[in-house]
Amino acid sequence: MIKIAYIGGGSKQWARVFMNDLALDEGDLCGEIALYDIDREAAERNRRIGMRIGNCPEARHKWSYTVSGTLDEALAGATFVVLSILPGTFDEMEVDVHAPEKYGVYQSVGDTVGPGGVLRAMRTVPLYEGFARAIKRCCPKAWVINFTNPMSICVKTLYDVFPEIKAFGCCHEVFHAQNFLCAVLHEQLGVPRPDRHELYTDACGVNHFTWITEAKWRNVDVLSLLPDFLQKYYRSGYYSGSLTAEQARTDPFCYNNRVKMDLYRRFGVLGAAGDRHLAEFVSNKWYMSDPRQVEEWGFHLTPVSYRKARQQERIEESIRLADGTQAVQPHRSDEEAVRLMKALLGCGTVVSNVNIVNVGQMPQMPLGAVVETNCVFDSDSVRPVTAKQLPSDVCNLVYRNCVNIETCYYGIKQRNLQMIFESFVNQPLCSSLDMAQARSLFEEMLVGTRKYLDEFYDLQAFLDNK
Amino acid sequence: MIKIAYIGGGSKQWARVFMNDLALDEGDLCGEIALYDIDREAAERNRRIGMRIGNCPEARHKWSYTVSGTLDEALAGATFVVLSILPGTFDEMEVDVHAPEKYGVYQSVGDTVGPGGVLRAMRTVPLYEGFARAIKRCCPKAWVINFTNPMSICVKTLYDVFPEIKAFGCCHEVFHAQNFLCAVLHEQLGVPRPDRHELYTDACGVNHFTWITEAKWRNVDVLSLLPDFLQKYYRSGYYSGSLTAEQARTDPFCYNNRVKMDLYRRFGVLGAAGDRHLAEFVSNKWYMSDPRQVEEWGFHLTPVSYRKARQQERIEESIRLADGTQAVQPHRSDEEAVRLMKALLGCGTVVSNVNIVNVGQMPQMPLGAVVETNCVFDSDSVRPVTAKQLPSDVCNLVYRNCVNIETCYYGIKQRNLQMIFESFVNQPLCSSLDMAQARSLFEEMLVGTRKYLDEFYDLQAFLDNK
Amino acid sequence: MIKIAYIGGGSKQWARVFMNDLALDEGDLCGEIALYDIDREAAERNRRIGMRIGNCPEARHKWSYTVSGTLDEALAGATFVVLSILPGTFDEMEVDVHAPEKYGVYQSVGDTVGPGGVLRAMRTVPLYEGFARAIKRCCPKAWVINFTNPMSICVKTLYDVFPEIKAFGCCHEVFHAQNFLCAVLHEQLGVPRPDRHELYTDACGVNHFTWITEAKWRNVDVLSLLPDFLQKYYRSGYYSGSLTAEQARTDPFCYNNRVKMDLYRRFGVLGAAGDRHLAEFVSNKWYMSDPRQVEEWGFHLTPVSYRKARQQERIEESIRLADGTQAVQPHRSDEEAVRLMKALLGCGTVVSNVNIVNVGQMPQMPLGAVVETNCVFDSDSVRPVTAKQLPSDVCNLVYRNCVNIETCYYGIKQRNLQMIFESFVNQPLCSSLDMAQARSLFEEMLVGTRKYLDEFYDLQAFLDNK
Amino acid sequence: MIKIAYIGGGSKQWARVFMNDLALDEGDLCGEIALYDIDREAAERNRRIGMRIGNCPEARHKWSYTVSGTLDEALAGATFVVLSILPGTFDEMEVDVHAPEKYGVYQSVGDTVGPGGVLRAMRTVPLYEGFARAIKRCCPKAWVINFTNPMSICVKTLYDVFPEIKAFGCCHEVFHAQNFLCAVLHEQLGVPRPDRHELYTDACGVNHFTWITEAKWRNVDVLSLLPDFLQKYYRSGYYSGSLTAEQARTDPFCYNNRVKMDLYRRFGVLGAAGDRHLAEFVSNKWYMSDPRQVEEWGFHLTPVSYRKARQQERIEESIRLADGTQAVQPHRSDEEAVRLMKALLGCGTVVSNVNIVNVGQMPQMPLGAVVETNCVFDSDSVRPVTAKQLPSDVCNLVYRNCVNIETCYYGIKQRNLQMIFESFVNQPLCSSLDMAQARSLFEEMLVGTRKYLDEFYDLQAFLDNK
Repeated sequence: MIKIAYIGGGSKQWARVFMNDLALDEGDLCGEIALYDIDREAAERNRRIGMRIGNCPEARHKWSYTVSGTLDEALAGATFVVLSILPGTFDEMEVDVHAPEKYGVYQSVGDTVGPGGVLRAMRTVPLYEGFARAIKRCCPKAWVINFTNPMSICVKTLYDVFPEIKAFGCCHEVFHAQNFLCAVLHEQLGVPRPDRHELYTDACGVNHFTWITEAKWRNVDVLSLLPDFLQKYYRSGYYSGSLTAEQARTDPFCYNNRVKMDLYRRFGVLGAAGDRHLAEFVSNKWYMSDPRQVEEWGFHLTPVSYRKARQQERIEESIRLADGTQAVQPHRSDEEAVRLMKALLGCGTVVSNVNIVNVGQMPQMPLGAVVETNCVFDSDSVRPVTAKQLPSDVCNLVYRNCVNIETCYYGIKQRNLQMIFESFVNQPLCSSLDMAQARSLFEEMLVGTRKYLDEFYDLQAFLDNK
Repeated sequence: MIKIAYIGGGSKQWARVFMNDLALDEGDLCGEIALYDIDREAAERNRRIGMRIGNCPEARHKWSYTVSGTLDEALAGATFVVLSILPGTFDEMEVDVHAPEKYGVYQSVGDTVGPGGVLRAMRTVPLYEGFARAIKRCCPKAWVINFTNPMSICVKTLYDVFPEIKAFGCCHEVFHAQNFLCAVLHEQLGVPRPDRHELYTDACGVNHFTWITEAKWRNVDVLSLLPDFLQKYYRSGYYSGSLTAEQARTDPFCYNNRVKMDLYRRFGVLGAAGDRHLAEFVSNKWYMSDPRQVEEWGFHLTPVSYRKARQQERIEESIRLADGTQAVQPHRSDEEAVRLMKALLGCGTVVSNVNIVNVGQMPQMPLGAVVETNCVFDSDSVRPVTAKQLPSDVCNLVYRNCVNIETCYYGIKQRNLQMIFESFVNQPLCSSLDMAQARSLFEEMLVGTRKYLDEFYDLQAFLDNK
Repeated sequence: MIKIAYIGGGSKQWARVFMNDLALDEGDLCGEIALYDIDREAAERNRRIGMRIGNCPEARHKWSYTVSGTLDEALAGATFVVLSILPGTFDEMEVDVHAPEKYGVYQSVGDTVGPGGVLRAMRTVPLYEGFARAIKRCCPKAWVINFTNPMSICVKTLYDVFPEIKAFGCCHEVFHAQNFLCAVLHEQLGVPRPDRHELYTDACGVNHFTWITEAKWRNVDVLSLLPDFLQKYYRSGYYSGSLTAEQARTDPFCYNNRVKMDLYRRFGVLGAAGDRHLAEFVSNKWYMSDPRQVEEWGFHLTPVSYRKARQQERIEESIRLADGTQAVQPHRSDEEAVRLMKALLGCGTVVSNVNIVNVGQMPQMPLGAVVETNCVFDSDSVRPVTAKQLPSDVCNLVYRNCVNIETCYYGIKQRNLQMIFESFVNQPLCSSLDMAQARSLFEEMLVGTRKYLDEFYDLQAFLDNK
Repeated sequence: MIKIAYIGGGSKQWARVFMNDLALDEGDLCGEIALYDIDREAAERNRRIGMRIGNCPEARHKWSYTVSGTLDEALAGATFVVLSILPGTFDEMEVDVHAPEKYGVYQSVGDTVGPGGVLRAMRTVPLYEGFARAIKRCCPKAWVINFTNPMSICVKTLYDVFPEIKAFGCCHEVFHAQNFLCAVLHEQLGVPRPDRHELYTDACGVNHFTWITEAKWRNVDVLSLLPDFLQKYYRSGYYSGSLTAEQARTDPFCYNNRVKMDLYRRFGVLGAAGDRHLAEFVSNKWYMSDPRQVEEWGFHLTPVSYRKARQQERIEESIRLADGTQAVQPHRSDEEAVRLMKALLGCGTVVSNVNIVNVGQMPQMPLGAVVETNCVFDSDSVRPVTAKQLPSDVCNLVYRNCVNIETCYYGIKQRNLQMIFESFVNQPLCSSLDMAQARSLFEEMLVGTRKYLDEFYDLQAFLDNK
């Protein structure tokens, strides 16, 4: 019987995936889930959906769901804490993603790095400082699983504020690259497409800009199959899931892996996240000079209007699911969180890639920065696995982002807008901006999202000091 | 269908354990085992024993066994190479272990560190230089599993001569400490004694001088149970296996864990090898000033005469097993080699402690030295897991031995007897020797084992240069 | 009596400065200077100029000058080797500097980093590989002083080919920043402008992109004077030497320190090279978007036509000086080479900034890369001084260039044009280029300078592989 | 006009040397010296002696001397702080040095490492914690020069308590080794014995256990002269100063460099402190098994009775000097403190070996430990110079002591007697002790000096917990 505190428990997507995975898991994990959200109504809906999932015939476990009135109430006595919030609203995200377009800077996601990532971090870090202090106060021994972006900077904040915290950040982007390699195995060797868990991959980097330096399937060196595979698919691209041409053309989350393949062609190691993410960590002149170039590289910009519309649909669906006018249909996801939680509870060993503070697993990156590598999960333990070295040119690209994130974090910690601005102008996506443009854009974005910033920063002094 | 080259294939003990484990394993590993030994007759006997094991009803796999006339023949095309030799004979080991006694230096094992370890290393390294070159020549992609002592220096030699080698060293000593902790769990919590695989331990150090810095069983912090356990057993000692008082008193391999408990009491982390081994890495005044003190600490010196007698019995048993006058009775051991091999072939992920070159898994030890930590085994991959930091006083004890081993290795590599001697006098077991005694002992030991040394070193010049 | 081998001994500028400094030095250094140049005539002219300098009344030492027919002849028995060559001719440099302009990439110097730096490195490294082998062969104990650009990559080549070499790279750019700080002291405190040797500066970085993190004059913290100084001069700029408005406007080597001051304003540490150099290590959108922006920042682009014209004048002057139709007028320079040489010969301790392999003096940069920091020069010894840490944002800018240089070097070493290209596209000066433009520019530059490349690289294969 | 706070200003020896050096220096350093001592009378005597020195005809500077009633009064406004105290009295030192003799442990000095060093550290650290806090409070920008032993642990305390402190530790032991090498130059090359400042030495290690890895005089590799020199003097020993046979035999501070030469013979690098100190950092079986062996190695044990007698003489002399019945006769010493102070004030660059926190100057030692290497002194700046690597066997000896000191310090900081005891038993001088003896000795020493310990540690609990 365990207690899971779910912060951001009104989530329309992740919470539902998580509730399904918990209900369907064949292990014997069970207990209470305490939902907490500043949108209490949404948490309440999820509570009811969770109970309906537990009542499904497919459900193996019936978790009890509660809604907490305060953060501290949710955290009290928790074994696990899940952090999965939206910092600000989609209105702020609209500024993050679209304000830069006037300046010729396009972003496919805008929640990790690039101008949008910096502004989002400015809103997020102060909240996470509060979470870290609350966890220290209420459940210092709990395992904390972060799903929120910007991932690296969220995890960094938790450890910097409360160094003894037992936290890690989970992300599924590497899984997509593993699935891609499974497709490559199938294509090149004619074997049935293996499950990604049959592969061993050595992945490392910073979240959303990870690299697979080695991939083995039995005794097959999977990366060595890529040159032939690229002969066929480098120009056309390759969708590793099944989808219609219409979807490929219109779903803003789709991509045909051309960016990933191009990075392999250039560097000999595989970019190991969705192409939409990878493209945000390199010069905007490489893959996102303009919307046309984005299309050529086989991915899409994700307009926030799309997110808003989807969000509205999901809310409506939530209401139907909560009141029973639509039936819940639980199914298992490809996420690993539940698997990792079971390993932490002593049900076997799992190796998976997560985001955690660098204690030497990536000797090429600064100690203390948050990096993503394989880690061993076992009874109440997470230990990072040493990663293979990145080639020097790739290391350089990763290091630049890794230190940008450090600079950005320490700038936010000190509420030092000049220091944050330096991490802003050094974003690879800002490569095409001159200093005046960068400053003007930064100021515009500050103003656009100031509702969430004024409490923490002295914006006015910075804006006045031309 | 794989090929395993077993070097030292006439082994009376390890080879048989290994053949049993292979035959009984529930996986689907199968193929050929090529035995090679300078004692061809012994290899031939093992071949016949291996076949008899395969014919047992309990056997799930029938491996084919061959005896190779040359090292290269054995290695050609191997998927795995097992190295398990006795460097020299028990006559030389008699000098290693007993010559120092005249000088008041006692050794419980004498094959790893201490005066015996240094001399044994001097015989072993030149052989391993040859193995490394042969592997490079015949099967450069094979996985090489070392069982020979001195473990660290054998693995070091392999990597130094052929840096691309895929080698690691397996040792069961940490398993004993894990079993001890399982007994502690049983004693203190009253739960049924768990299997050691249910524990997660963070073990690190150099082979035979490893330390458990964290041990978790489900959500139980196992080390935190030790203070109460020590209240009961620190003075009396505690045997973690079942054995008779007579065995405890007379079996030179038995020990009652007092050394291990004493190290925990002093340092707060658990010595994680057999007490016989642990005691050889610290000042001989701590646990082995004289035979009486050894008995007080609940372990035994292992006279080589005992090994010789046991060896003779084993040879006779081998003859009977080979010719069928004694029936083979295969049973599974607690060793991990077969489990690791299966992981390397792609049958799942295994985390286990092995000896491998330090690439950062122990940042407190020199890079390039051989250390023992957890490693992740998966398809054609071994990656070290970063270990928790040792307390500074323990780190100091480990570092001293780790660098002694490095100095000893480089001295042997350069055939520089002065440099080897410096690693000899700096052995903690030589703490009670003054320089003249140390020199005299070293010379005596050189002379006593010179049959195996003269080919490689200019002993005479060193002996003449008083 | 020492022998100095001067490789590139036909130099029209550096050789003359060096001959003057040697002749006028008040120490008692004396001996032979062996000039070697592929333009033997130029070396011959310098020989005669050198003799004329020795005959001047001001000269304290009369060095003997010889012209060597071969590299080995020059090097044989040398105590010091000076390397000061032009890799290729100004025709190739014209391609280096001006070809990128069509693509909107401007370069103020074009000999260190940026597109020009990469191409120049491609010509230079193969020559330096030869120098390193010749030094190993002819004078392995000689001290080797490099003046050639690209500095870092020249020094890297020497150490990589011949690790025991005793080499370092000298550059005067930090001195200019020290002179600037002396001017600041004068301006802000009203004291007579001190000599730069009275300051202690902690400078570090990569050559031409060095940073002063601390500057002390007696008990004055000189950097702390900058905020007030910038109030006065940030907008107008400040020339630290005396020069006419006409010179400031037209001399392409002049700059008014606005870039340096801007870097200080942004990062709190001082860019410590000429502004023309500093600007080449950051995004071309910062200070060199176009010629107009360059002028606004108070420095100039240096057209190669200017260098050619100046070169012609210098040749003519050399002819007059050599044949005596123009009198030599020796005077001391601000260069440190002679001072460092004397320290190496045992005449006192000198601390000065030079370029040498990183052994830990800059823990933030990769070990083995060439960095510039203070070093202690004394009898036959150069030891790097540990530098203060750079702020993380500055460290990021330096690291990017440092690893670019490493990637570029290893690409050239392996004659791997794809790897060289990756270092090319990652140049901050190429920030505004998309991949197609970068590739097209790179190919154009390869073709433009192929006379010096075809011997070493398989250009055609690369050019064909679109 | 500067102010120097001299803590321990009643010193009978160091203070006088320092006052002389200040008075005779040819620079233009002048100002006030504030003497502070718990023995105010002694400080008062020194004040009067200082004034008399200033009145001598030889004196170039007349410093003003004051006696401060409190530590804070002395420190207020100081430019420099000199720390030079005796922790406890010679009665406690008598226990430090002689209590171990009953257990067969002899100490030549007993104030740095070994049992005496640990006990002395236990008395000293709490005092230094107070000094660090007072300096932070009263003169945070002052340069702090430590002369007190145990040097490493004093400097460590200062930095650990007040990380921004500008402190270093000065010791003359390396100078003695430099003088020895000057004598070697004279002996082997027949040149006039050079001044030690003409040599360049690369010295590193921990205080009193430093090593010269390179020594150059002009272009001469001085260490390369040692093998021939040892042919002559290894057995007989060699006194590098002039002294009578009687002095050599009886002055307990004399030694004939046999230990130093033996270390060179064994390791190829030169032990670079007085033999009395070097011998304390290695197994007591090497050079100090018993008084006879000490004599054979050409040095002496220094009985505290000798120190007491000498102290008495010095007090009497002080009284005479203070009241004028004995004339002051100022002369310059070989100490470097005044030279370093002048460099810090901006009067030139000095490179000298001092003790400071490891920031990378010795990559083989733990960062944050106090090490001794060359440092560059210049205007308000001290920067460590990277040291050459020690051979692995020497590194091992140094590392053991370095980490012992760290463990001892952290044990004291935490008032953790078990942890202190572990650093005690791991002292090389305790090599011959078994655990029971070590414990018994440690307890005896605690009791013997408890007057200075009870305030800080819970001795009784430790003594009761057998």
